[in-house]
Amino acid sequence: MPEDSKHILSSFEADLGRLRDMIAAMGGLVETELADAVTALLTRDAALAARVVEFDTRVDAEERAIEQFAIRVLALRQPVADDLRQVVAALKVTTDLERIGDYAANVAKRTLILNEAAPSYPLASLAQMSRLVQENLKTTIDAIAEADPQKAVSVWRADQMIDDLYTTIFRELITYMMEDARNISACTHLLFIAKNLERIGDHATNVAELTYYAATGETLPDTRPKGDLLAAYARQSNQ
Amino acid sequence: MPEDSKHILSSFEADLGRLRDMIAAMGGLVETELADAVTALLTRDAALAARVVEFDTRVDAEERAIEQFAIRVLALRQPVADDLRQVVAALKVTTDLERIGDYAANVAKRTLILNEAAPSYPLASLAQMSRLVQENLKTTIDAIAEADPQKAVSVWRADQMIDDLYTTIFRELITYMMEDARNISACTHLLFIAKNLERIGDHATNVAELTYYAATGETLPDTRPKGDLLAAYARQSNQ
Repeated sequence: MPEDSKHILSSFEADLGRLRDMIAAMGGLVETELADAVTALLTRDAALAARVVEFDTRVDAEERAIEQFAIRVLALRQPVADDLRQVVAALKVTTDLERIGDYAANVAKRTLILNEAAPSYPLASLAQMSRLVQENLKTTIDAIAEADPQKAVSVWRADQMIDDLYTTIFRELITYMMEDARNISACTHLLFIAKNLERIGDHATNVAELTYYAATGETLPDTRPKGDLLAAYARQSNQ
Repeated sequence: MPEDSKHILSSFEADLGRLRDMIAAMGGLVETELADAVTALLTRDAALAARVVEFDTRVDAEERAIEQFAIRVLALRQPVADDLRQVVAALKVTTDLERIGDYAANVAKRTLILNEAAPSYPLASLAQMSRLVQENLKTTIDAIAEADPQKAVSVWRADQMIDDLYTTIFRELITYMMEDARNISACTHLLFIAKNLERIGDHATNVAELTYYAATGETLPDTRPKGDLLAAYARQSNQ
């Protein structure tokens, strides 16, 4: 290999490493944002919820910085094949992480409303769901940082449990609303909070799929059995 | 300019034109999907709703085709500066269009559940909101096809009306649930349908922002006054 292309190759490897580090760092920010949003929800901490909403602008800024860097890498290094695939996957992962941040901020916004509106509501199942979503997000960020396809597969599998728990929570909240009309307003916010957590799980799964693709060049099958609410309802109404 | 680079330049222009055509075509598919989802909802047409769910796989396939083509353009033409920006914006627009398709499919799935579960429910405001969202999506697709920044700005402005209508519908549905507990289950699905439509509006706005950026190199300001539900609630609770 001539000296020149070896030099170019190693510069590109360095850029790719830096891109991966930036994304893992953004992932860390999003993890913190979600952890704080969940704590604010479960402990009814309005000040923390307000800080989460504020924090989301940092995540958005990080997305733009990564995007600018990825575009510079594309322009300067003009990668092809596998290398190009990794940069494109990085751009898409960043979009998913930004969406996860948005959903976490949305949980925090609704927590602020709940704190003013409702005297009390059941949070045990939501706490359990939050834990699963946070674990899955953590594994996802690890999969990115370590470019580990096996971790990506485990995220993809675990999302099923999150979907099942969402279905349980949906039914609990409907029952709670039916028991007492005064619960309705607060419970609709809790429904959307549960939905936000379920969507965070979906985006973590997207990131896992992209990470698997970037690492192996293969796509995970499209046919993971979806256990979401709508599928459950469809099954139920067929019975 | 030497013959060679003129040739390369015009090939890239042709690729960029083809990319724009592919995205406009995908936009057309998504427009059809949304129109059918709305018709199925308003006319309680279960067969049409089922076809919408099926149709969404075509939109997903189109997203993958565009992505593959964009990656090939990046690899073969190695564009820089403005040209590179346009290809990257195209990749991001495709992600937003795919999400709009998902939300339309979700409206259709919930329509299927509603048709089995609920005898009747008020749809006038949802019909109005659907019309606005469809108009905004149409203007967005036109803005892409014509690379027209002014149309992009008008989408960005009109999203405010959609957000306001969403807030109205949210309140109507809560009232309806409070009046009679038998409405709760159906109305929660309608709440999510309204939320899906509002999200479609947001993604159309994203596409408009990307189209504006690709056409002008400038970003629209971040500070468009958000008139969404959470902002409205926050205002209300400050009164």
